Order: sequence, then C-alpha cells, then structure tokens
Amino acid sequence: MTKEVNYLLGYENLKIVQDKEMFKCSLDSILLPNFITLKKTCKNILDIGTGNAPIPLILCTKTNAHIKAVEIQKEVYEMALESVHINKLEKQIEVINADINEFAKEYNDYFDYITCNPPYFKLSELSHINNNDYKTIARHEKTLTLEQIFKISRKVLKNNGFLGLVHRPERLVDILVLMHKYNIEPKKIQFVYPGNSKEASILLIEGAKNGKPGLKILEPIYAHLENGEYSDQIKTYFS
Amino acid sequence: MTKEVNYLLGYENLKIVQDKEMFKCSLDSILLPNFITLKKTCKNILDIGTGNAPIPLILCTKTNAHIKAVEIQKEVYEMALESVHINKLEKQIEVINADINEFAKEYNDYFDYITCNPPYFKLSELSHINNNDYKTIARHEKTLTLEQIFKISRKVLKNNGFLGLVHRPERLVDILVLMHKYNIEPKKIQFVYPGNSKEASILLIEGAKNGKPGLKILEPIYAHLENGEYSDQIKTYFS
Repeated sequence: MTKEVNYLLGYENLKIVQDKEMFKCSLDSILLPNFITLKKTCKNILDIGTGNAPIPLILCTKTNAHIKAVEIQKEVYEMALESVHINKLEKQIEVINADINEFAKEYNDYFDYITCNPPYFKLSELSHINNNDYKTIARHEKTLTLEQIFKISRKVLKNNGFLGLVHRPERLVDILVLMHKYNIEPKKIQFVYPGNSKEASILLIEGAKNGKPGLKILEPIYAHLENGEYSDQIKTYFS
Repeated sequence: MTKEVNYLLGYENLKIVQDKEMFKCSLDSILLPNFITLKKTCKNILDIGTGNAPIPLILCTKTNAHIKAVEIQKEVYEMALESVHINKLEKQIEVINADINEFAKEYNDYFDYITCNPPYFKLSELSHINNNDYKTIARHEKTLTLEQIFKISRKVLKNNGFLGLVHRPERLVDILVLMHKYNIEPKKIQFVYPGNSKEASILLIEGAKNGKPGLKILEPIYAHLENGEYSDQIKTYFS
C-alpha cells in the first residue's frame, strides 16, 4: 500500500486519504452528493460502501445530518477513518467496518437518506475482474448486488426517505425494475456526458420509499470541456 | 370537421390532411421516424395508431419497406388514406381501419419494425379527458393501453425485430418494466428538451425483441431555440 493524502478533487477544504494501488476518488463520488435532494429535516444519512469516504466528506459541506459510512474492507475502512480524522469530522461522520447486509439487520425505518456508489459490474462479467482484491470488491457485485441495495434501502429507509445512486446508464433497466419491485419510486434522473462522447457515461438517480409517481429527467451534465478540463458546471460544485 | 391539406411540418415534399377540430401533426411524429434504426434488410413495418399517417409518410423518405398503418377511428383513417393518396404512396403504405388488438391476431413473427406514438395518458387521469372523442381516443389509453402495445409487439415482431416508441419521460418506469416483462430489450433512449425548460419533455426509446442487453443513452435533443424556432438539430430532419 502506498497511501497519500490529497485534496478531494477540486475541494480546497477537504482532504482525503488515497492509495494508488487501491483506488482513487472519482468523478462519480463528486456528482452524487451534488445531485441529491437534501431536505432541512434530514437527520440521518447512510452511505453504503463508502470507500475512503468521499461522499460523506462532501455531504458535510451541505448538511448537518449525522452520517453513518459503512465499508466492508478493513484496509479501506481505515483510510476512511483517517480521512474523517484529517478533516476533523468525527462528530458528523461515523465510519463503520461491516458488511452492509449485517449492519442493516439492526435498523428499520430509520434513515432519511441513503447514498451509494455501488459496484458497477455483475460478477458474471468475468473479463472485467481485477486481480487486485480491493478493486474487485469495490467494482463488482461480489459482496453487494444491486438487488441487495434496494432490499436494504426499503428496510432501513423511513417512509418517503430517499435513495440516491450513481451508476452506469446501461444498468438503467435493472435499476428501474428493482426500484419498482421494492417500492422505491424514481423521482429524478440525470445523465452525465463526458466531453468526447455522444453517449451518456454516468447515471444519477434518486427514488423515494413508497413515493408518489412523477419522474423527472433533469438537464444533462457535460462533465468536461473539449480540452479535457472540468466544465464550468462541474466547477460550481467545488466552490 | 374542417379538413385542410398542409405540408407536413417542415417537409416540403410531403403533404398531410389535417383537421383543426381533431388534431394536428406534432413534433413527436417527426422525432420518432428520425430516431429509429432502419436496417437495409427491413421489409415490413407496422405503425400502430397511425392517426393521419405522419410517421409512415416520413418513413417513406428513408426506407423502401412496406408499411401497414393501423388506425381504429374511421374518420381519422380516412384522413390517413387521403394523405397517402395525395403523396402517391399507396404502393408503399397500406392504411387499415382496425382495432390493433384484432389486427394482431393475424400476425406472428412477421414485422421487422413497429413504430408507435401511443396515447399518453392513463384513462384514470380523468382531469385530462377531452370531450372531443377523437382526441380522447388518440390521447388516452381508452382503446390501447401501454401494456397491450408490448404484448402485441412481442407477438407480431420477428425475433430481433425492433419497437420504437415516442412517449413522456414520466412514463419511463412503466415502459421499462413492461419491456422487461415482454422480453423487448431496450437498446437506445434519447430525451428531447424544449427550449424553455430544464426537464426533458419527450422520450424516444427503441427495443429489440429478445435482444441482448446493452442500453445506450444518446445525446440530448434540444428542440427549440430561445426565440421558439426549431433548432438546427430538428431542421436537419426536414432536408
């Protein structure tokens, strides 16, 4: 492991502990906390598969709610702990080293909001399997399937509590079918387009437990300029 | 009825019979035929609920395939007939006055492509019910529900044949859940944004019967300029 402390991508007030061998904070983790609907009444947030805790760190710039950040991998959990410590956010963020499936057994109708930047690939997509175990777990549905996320969310979310996910557009069908199955009503979707492609590369979606139908497709986000720099739209997140 | 013959919205080579009291050709009917994937091997197309036949008319500028255009309402069917006649397209477009549910009984694994600009509103949305019967049937799921469209499509489409729909973004969940149920795999989606709103107002979606997963979200379409004129993107369709 070669740990290093960096500024959290564009955030001059937030530092994060990263490891080149493991994984670095990506644009996904910046997009999700800037997409979600945070009500003033929001008291308890859960971040599933928190990694080195980028989402909770950014959420602290937006809300006073208490955040439980759950990470299954011991070494990654320790980086999250350190990140929280460096930013002196221990009072607001509680990092927990647990399997979310076990963690969820203790909670019913408790959280106002759940965020999740889940593993993207099905385990069956073997060609993508990374030999590095840390990356394999973070990127593949090895310890957490898409269905488990919705099942857990339905259990631990308050009625009308929200789930916010960042995922790949090609999984939209699976996501909407599962949200339908678990009565998490999709309320808004936003697609993110990289600079050099005509297809969306990132999907942001928010649903409400037992919410009323009424899906909105928000304006597209263009992440990069032609020269590869972040667009003005993305830069507004950092200010 | 006050019938009139107009150019089909921006198409200088196509005329269409319209009726102010009934309904006029809308942007939806222009967008769908310009969105769909027309293979050279496409021989037989079905347009469900063809109205005054705008979609078949535009398809004739793009393909030599034979088109069956089905319309349940006698008076609307007659306008479609006239439209086809004025453009001398009787050889390519066959207009049929029938309930699509009855029509579909005669076909199995036959069509290469099905287009449909279906009724948008559920019949339960009574506030939207229009007293004009023509409009009520064209706009509400009175004679054709969303589920029937997919059920019929699965029956009459060839294996790997396509279904292309134009609908409202708020029905995306219903559409994807039903496509999943009837094994019509979504392959591409495109959202259309009007000039003055940050939310998408039109959904274009294409699926393949028993197709392989692999959904793409295409670049957004901006329909209008700030002054209300059609955007250059839309104008390319008319040339």
